Amino acid sequence: MKIDLNSDLGESFGRYTLGCDEQVVPLVTSINAACGFHAGDPSVMRKTVKLAKEAGVSVGAHPGFDDLQGFGRRNMNLSSDELQACVLYQLGALDAFVKAEGMKLAHVKPHGAMYNMAAKDRTMAMAVCEAVKMYDPNLIILAQESGQLYQCAGELGLPAAAEVFADRAYEEDGTLVARSKPGAVITDPDEALARVLRMIKEGKVTAVTGRDISVRADSVCVHGDGESALEFIRRIRSACEKEGIVLSPLKEIV
Amino acid sequence: MKIDLNSDLGESFGRYTLGCDEQVVPLVTSINAACGFHAGDPSVMRKTVKLAKEAGVSVGAHPGFDDLQGFGRRNMNLSSDELQACVLYQLGALDAFVKAEGMKLAHVKPHGAMYNMAAKDRTMAMAVCEAVKMYDPNLIILAQESGQLYQCAGELGLPAAAEVFADRAYEEDGTLVARSKPGAVITDPDEALARVLRMIKEGKVTAVTGRDISVRADSVCVHGDGESALEFIRRIRSACEKEGIVLSPLKEIV
Amino acid sequence: MKIDLNSDLGESFGRYTLGCDEQVVPLVTSINAACGFHAGDPSVMRKTVKLAKEAGVSVGAHPGFDDLQGFGRRNMNLSSDELQACVLYQLGALDAFVKAEGMKLAHVKPHGAMYNMAAKDRTMAMAVCEAVKMYDPNLIILAQESGQLYQCAGELGLPAAAEVFADRAYEEDGTLVARSKPGAVITDPDEALARVLRMIKEGKVTAVTGRDISVRADSVCVHGDGESALEFIRRIRSACEKEGIVLSPLKEIV
Amino acid sequence: MKIDLNSDLGESFGRYTLGCDEQVVPLVTSINAACGFHAGDPSVMRKTVKLAKEAGVSVGAHPGFDDLQGFGRRNMNLSSDELQACVLYQLGALDAFVKAEGMKLAHVKPHGAMYNMAAKDRTMAMAVCEAVKMYDPNLIILAQESGQLYQCAGELGLPAAAEVFADRAYEEDGTLVARSKPGAVITDPDEALARVLRMIKEGKVTAVTGRDISVRADSVCVHGDGESALEFIRRIRSACEKEGIVLSPLKEIV
Repeated sequence: MKIDLNSDLGESFGRYTLGCDEQVVPLVTSINAACGFHAGDPSVMRKTVKLAKEAGVSVGAHPGFDDLQGFGRRNMNLSSDELQACVLYQLGALDAFVKAEGMKLAHVKPHGAMYNMAAKDRTMAMAVCEAVKMYDPNLIILAQESGQLYQCAGELGLPAAAEVFADRAYEEDGTLVARSKPGAVITDPDEALARVLRMIKEGKVTAVTGRDISVRADSVCVHGDGESALEFIRRIRSACEKEGIVLSPLKEIV
Repeated sequence: MKIDLNSDLGESFGRYTLGCDEQVVPLVTSINAACGFHAGDPSVMRKTVKLAKEAGVSVGAHPGFDDLQGFGRRNMNLSSDELQACVLYQLGALDAFVKAEGMKLAHVKPHGAMYNMAAKDRTMAMAVCEAVKMYDPNLIILAQESGQLYQCAGELGLPAAAEVFADRAYEEDGTLVARSKPGAVITDPDEALARVLRMIKEGKVTAVTGRDISVRADSVCVHGDGESALEFIRRIRSACEKEGIVLSPLKEIV
Repeated sequence: MKIDLNSDLGESFGRYTLGCDEQVVPLVTSINAACGFHAGDPSVMRKTVKLAKEAGVSVGAHPGFDDLQGFGRRNMNLSSDELQACVLYQLGALDAFVKAEGMKLAHVKPHGAMYNMAAKDRTMAMAVCEAVKMYDPNLIILAQESGQLYQCAGELGLPAAAEVFADRAYEEDGTLVARSKPGAVITDPDEALARVLRMIKEGKVTAVTGRDISVRADSVCVHGDGESALEFIRRIRSACEKEGIVLSPLKEIV
Repeated sequence: MKIDLNSDLGESFGRYTLGCDEQVVPLVTSINAACGFHAGDPSVMRKTVKLAKEAGVSVGAHPGFDDLQGFGRRNMNLSSDELQACVLYQLGALDAFVKAEGMKLAHVKPHGAMYNMAAKDRTMAMAVCEAVKMYDPNLIILAQESGQLYQCAGELGLPAAAEVFADRAYEEDGTLVARSKPGAVITDPDEALARVLRMIKEGKVTAVTGRDISVRADSVCVHGDGESALEFIRRIRSACEKEGIVLSPLKEIV
């Protein structure tokens, strides 16, 4: 039994520092690196990829909307053509640093509003997946199994990995409970840990309605902002070790 | 005897159109495509690369400073690290569209202030060439033979092609006469044509001082903004044909 | 009987020129000047305000979303706080140039997606109007009478002027027929002219359904992109003159 | 005897937080608020001005180059016209939030590379001061007495206030020792405090050469990044109180 741990990194920009990337990198198996649109700048991207290389961690692209002020979290309406070009651009930009380090780009996980919109909007999901396929058909799409990105990846013959969230409540259809609703976030670390282990081992999670649902878990999305977040990653790691679950990058799972 | 004709293309942005790319592309052998920093956006870049593919024309990257308002023509002070990352980012971004069309990126020619500053500043030239080498050591640096970019490319073992300007006066050291000085621009098309043919055939041009200097010409930089510019390219083409000079992309010359 | 003619101006940016502002300015009574977010840069804004001053034309702000690539035409989801701050910023920025010319800012007309979204979304319309009121409660909101911007301006005690479109078809509720639908644009200049004169004189227009609806016309939005657009403005001007309709800036109408 | 304490604030941007503005504001008498080009976004600017209002602190504009990645610290070559427009734009943008709070903008202090370049380059200094004068001739220019900004303000009849730096070494001509040189920064807080008090009381400071020079001190520039910086401001405040030096905003000093 294998699981990947992925985290969004490289979100600093110029004079601004976000997250504690140096500490997170050695604790995960894959990073999603911001590509300069919603966060990250060329110098940050270069440094982030170097960090991943030193730690032997797999690198994926984390393309987002071109909205630095909104951190890519504000919905934007792009045409399919615009979205394809926007994703292609960011894949190539990040890959330049990956190539410069002699590594290979492993996966793609859209960020923020692009991820959320594409999860529900088949046209957008298809545009993202087509861009990825044009760039490199071996790139793994990392997304929730319940969403359109995962679905479209499969239809286009792209490898796809299913991610789960330890700290988020699920609706019965496998989507996340909106942050605006009560109970959207699992705040108790013990509960979060128990849920994530059950998702990995049994492929099941209790939805916000109380009903158990199926959920595919190839990768767990973890946060690296602050000491308690880092501590939670360490707990997942040691729990996995105890359970015989091997931490592995996506390419060894998909 | 071979010569490449190169032109800066893909300089439109969003709602804004610049140049007449459709008409220029079939008249040249290489295009320098803007990479989204000083001009160009992802959709424009994609369209530009497609145009080049249809016309069977070679594509190079035209990275510039991140200064859309100034069109990359305003000097900016970047550290070597910043400049390397800035160039790597743009190379990768453009290459995404090149790869998506099944083509291969052929060369790199910095734009505007980055080109002019790097021509004189060895540290900057080295940073640009190092970034190119990290990305792909087969990429050709396109620059004036008299400048630091051409020089550093050679030192780093990168292939380099020497470009000349038909419509610009030269100083005795092979640099261009600054636009602020009288006589900087050759306005008579007949004179410009005669000069460019002499540069190609004899490797000589008369400097602004009246003295003949040596100048290496692998590629002629031509403009595509407006009918008279297009007409001038057509004249170069037919003059070359008459003289038995073969128009060839850079990779067949260097 | 009075009418204002308004046109979107100052939409150039850096190296990019859009529209023929010099020719449009003397033909209208009010300009909506882009504020640097969806179009326009500080130098363009300064020049635009100077043009308006020389022609004795009234200046309004044309704030848009911070999306130069999309020209402010792509829907973006901003919170009310973000939208207020975004509008305040642009009002002040434009007003700097207006003040520097010894003029007074006259009105505000949101641009593109901000205009269209606020027309339908009361929360957004209220945020825009509140920002305008905070900045200067004498500023006139220029918007369609049928939309939320016009409505909210009235509720907040801001002066409002109703604009109509000569070249667009109307739904029965007074909104514009979406451009994606057939018949959205009136392409026959004679028909457009007749419609606009009837809107001014009778306050009526035939909706796309064939039924006559009431429509308040304080200002006609005219385009200035190209010779046929300029010719149409000239026809409106001479028709108004013939009909005894006086062309007046908004502050003499509201 | 009076002195102003000024600090650069409002340098956060979107998701990125910089400085501890809430704690600094009540300790100073004037803030220099970033205007959205090198730092700050509309929402941050609004919040910053509100903070200053609550604390009864005077607000000045801190315009910078349009270079968020470089935090306005990279030299950029703008024409005088571009620089004037760039400053006017930022003054107006910030003033929108100041007006919305019923306050009055008090001063202008260029940021980073714009400040440093204008200190030495008379053409740039004149462009900045002309823009300020066009906007509001009562605005105080805050700059070092030894530089061109202070000089040009005087020539144009603008009020000017002289700022000093507690933690920086001075050359004999009153300019700061470049950060690249040894001894550029005074790291001992006791020494820094003694120097600043002497500058205020005697108008003298010991240059890096060992020679005493005259230096005019209307305002001390203090930093607010971190606890030791805050502690240093508190020490200046209590030392001033002990010495009978009254902390006052610039308009009560100039």
